[in-house]
Amino acid sequence: MTKEQVLHSLAVQTESKLLMVVIDGLGGLPVRGKTELEAAKISNLDRLASKSICGLIDPISYGITPGSGPSHLALFGYDPVRYEIGRGVMEALGIGLSLTKDDLTARGNFATIDGNGIIVDRRAGRISTEKNNEVCQFLQSKIREVNGIKVAIYPGKEHRFVIVFQGEGLKDDLTDADPQKDGKRAKETENLTEEAQRTAEIVNEYLRRATEALKPFHPANAVLLRGFSKIPDISSMSARFKLKPAAIATYPMYRGLARLVGMEILETGETLRDEVETLKKYYDRYDFFYIHFKKTDSAGEDGHFKMKVKALEEIDRVIPSLLKLKPDVLVVTGDHSTPALLKGHSWHPNPILLNSKYERLDRLRRFTERECQKGQLGRFPASEVLPLMLASGLKLKKFGA
Amino acid sequence: MTKEQVLHSLAVQTESKLLMVVIDGLGGLPVRGKTELEAAKISNLDRLASKSICGLIDPISYGITPGSGPSHLALFGYDPVRYEIGRGVMEALGIGLSLTKDDLTARGNFATIDGNGIIVDRRAGRISTEKNNEVCQFLQSKIREVNGIKVAIYPGKEHRFVIVFQGEGLKDDLTDADPQKDGKRAKETENLTEEAQRTAEIVNEYLRRATEALKPFHPANAVLLRGFSKIPDISSMSARFKLKPAAIATYPMYRGLARLVGMEILETGETLRDEVETLKKYYDRYDFFYIHFKKTDSAGEDGHFKMKVKALEEIDRVIPSLLKLKPDVLVVTGDHSTPALLKGHSWHPNPILLNSKYERLDRLRRFTERECQKGQLGRFPASEVLPLMLASGLKLKKFGA
Repeated sequence: MTKEQVLHSLAVQTESKLLMVVIDGLGGLPVRGKTELEAAKISNLDRLASKSICGLIDPISYGITPGSGPSHLALFGYDPVRYEIGRGVMEALGIGLSLTKDDLTARGNFATIDGNGIIVDRRAGRISTEKNNEVCQFLQSKIREVNGIKVAIYPGKEHRFVIVFQGEGLKDDLTDADPQKDGKRAKETENLTEEAQRTAEIVNEYLRRATEALKPFHPANAVLLRGFSKIPDISSMSARFKLKPAAIATYPMYRGLARLVGMEILETGETLRDEVETLKKYYDRYDFFYIHFKKTDSAGEDGHFKMKVKALEEIDRVIPSLLKLKPDVLVVTGDHSTPALLKGHSWHPNPILLNSKYERLDRLRRFTERECQKGQLGRFPASEVLPLMLASGLKLKKFGA
Repeated sequence: MTKEQVLHSLAVQTESKLLMVVIDGLGGLPVRGKTELEAAKISNLDRLASKSICGLIDPISYGITPGSGPSHLALFGYDPVRYEIGRGVMEALGIGLSLTKDDLTARGNFATIDGNGIIVDRRAGRISTEKNNEVCQFLQSKIREVNGIKVAIYPGKEHRFVIVFQGEGLKDDLTDADPQKDGKRAKETENLTEEAQRTAEIVNEYLRRATEALKPFHPANAVLLRGFSKIPDISSMSARFKLKPAAIATYPMYRGLARLVGMEILETGETLRDEVETLKKYYDRYDFFYIHFKKTDSAGEDGHFKMKVKALEEIDRVIPSLLKLKPDVLVVTGDHSTPALLKGHSWHPNPILLNSKYERLDRLRRFTERECQKGQLGRFPASEVLPLMLASGLKLKKFGA
């Protein structure tokens, strides 16, 4: 048996409630001696850590900086290396599209080509988002389908868009239809496997028709497509772990990731308080909740140390409302580190606390990277968090006799 | 090379003596702030821990609660997920049967069926163990073999028994011949693979003849069989690690598990002292000893915190006799946790100490879950314990040049 099969064979449905709080980009790096967590006044999280068991989790493995896709898959209990989420899919999830297994997605750029088909600007002079909307609308009206395959195009910011080809049997083993550099000829996609040949023909037919249609739209007179991908063939959390899971997140991308593993997406507002209210409202209906707090990551990405500290303090203030619900198992952790010092995701592990009545408490003083390192959970892969939550909620039978 | 092959290629036979002390169900959970180990007066173990290197081991992986089979396989240096030990085999080992690769075992119930073959009581009114003995003896005298395959039936408690089919080519890819519920028809076994077809026919022929023979024994007038299994195809510790291993255990199941990996089973008495005497008596003849102390687990299973504390204290008192033998490598650990709080096995890691002259000592104060977490061994899988013991006994050559 694989470990996946073992877990599946042991999972049982019970009444206990599991709550996973994901603070995006939680971990940091020291600036003047202190990480963001060490600098923050987070007395609620500190107190909770003192009554929990703690550790450090690696999203993927030592040294690997993950995107949001793999880091969330790991937290949801899936092998993040086995189940790949392509760029096109991530982009589509980011704008809130609901994808099915028949959808082939790609990220697109409007670009400028000269009379010989040579790309003179891969970003079409960064046309305005407004102009982008207009061009997309026009293209959509001109090309609704290609050889029986529906095509939908969704504008993003400036020159960017997402395209979705919808129909049975589409494959994503395709090269980018994008030479990645100015001064080169706009290129077609090529199929990497024989099965993807028909898909490549459809995409290339689309490209030809789009170029034809866009002639009056200079500088946006060509399209480049990259990151062709379909959603991974992944079993739901309900099938795999016998959970009834729900997701609360203010950003579409995280709702989309949760939808990939079969979570119900709960409607919520824009603020942390809205998210907590949503949790309260639906608390009786599900047995696993993923609640996502985004602000820490955005501040880290901007390299804004103080703003990340403030975001942590803001999150700390909603912790008591979560505790009032008395979940049987409460985990607080991050999907990946986003140190302000690096202005981006990083490979550093995240602190984690697990609160349940069936634990040997660590009695640590703070919820920080360095303090959690002293905890009994040790340093371990993020994909083990869900099995641990299931166990602590008495949702796993004994393995073997 | 797989890791298994690496270890095999490095193992060398030497004079050094390895002693693995397994305290069954060692780890616990806090009750009024202290775990069983924390509440126990175990000055010998504490002193030993202060002169050893310590850590925490996970029997299988985070969150997985193991049965005794997989947790022991891991301690013996085998991958506990790869080598499965079926329910029938565990039951047979539990009553002290010595199984060969030609034996197919299953757990059995006597049950009551009505005139239409519908099960009215899966446990035959929980007939007395005495009555069970009588029925088994009768059945055994009536059906000694089926199509050239020998059949042996061994009574257990109340309505339970173990059955062994013995002959070449028997397979265990069989469904349970047990609908698991009253009110359903007694069912035959079905083969899950084509190779198991002949085995299924033999088992079903046995079932028909048994039902016929049991007619006068109402309420024990039918048999239900489940957990068909054979011993795993597993190489011996001697073949794999070049050890000459011996086992000392008072309970048949643990002797049986040790026999599965090719250990010599040493005859011993009922008490801890008997086990230690056995160890002394045979100390010169082997280079690896597994000694099993059971009482802690039984107390934990009964939810009896104080009794588990007492059992730990009793074990602590025999530690000096073990030290007198001056083993080159001494490990004290558990196969799994059995917290009195949970009245059963659990997923929590076990403390481990390793005493050898080739270690950087931790100088910890106590042999407890929380204290061992501070040790340099860290938190690691139980299947790594044996390689560590081999290394500390200088029984592993260098890997690569």
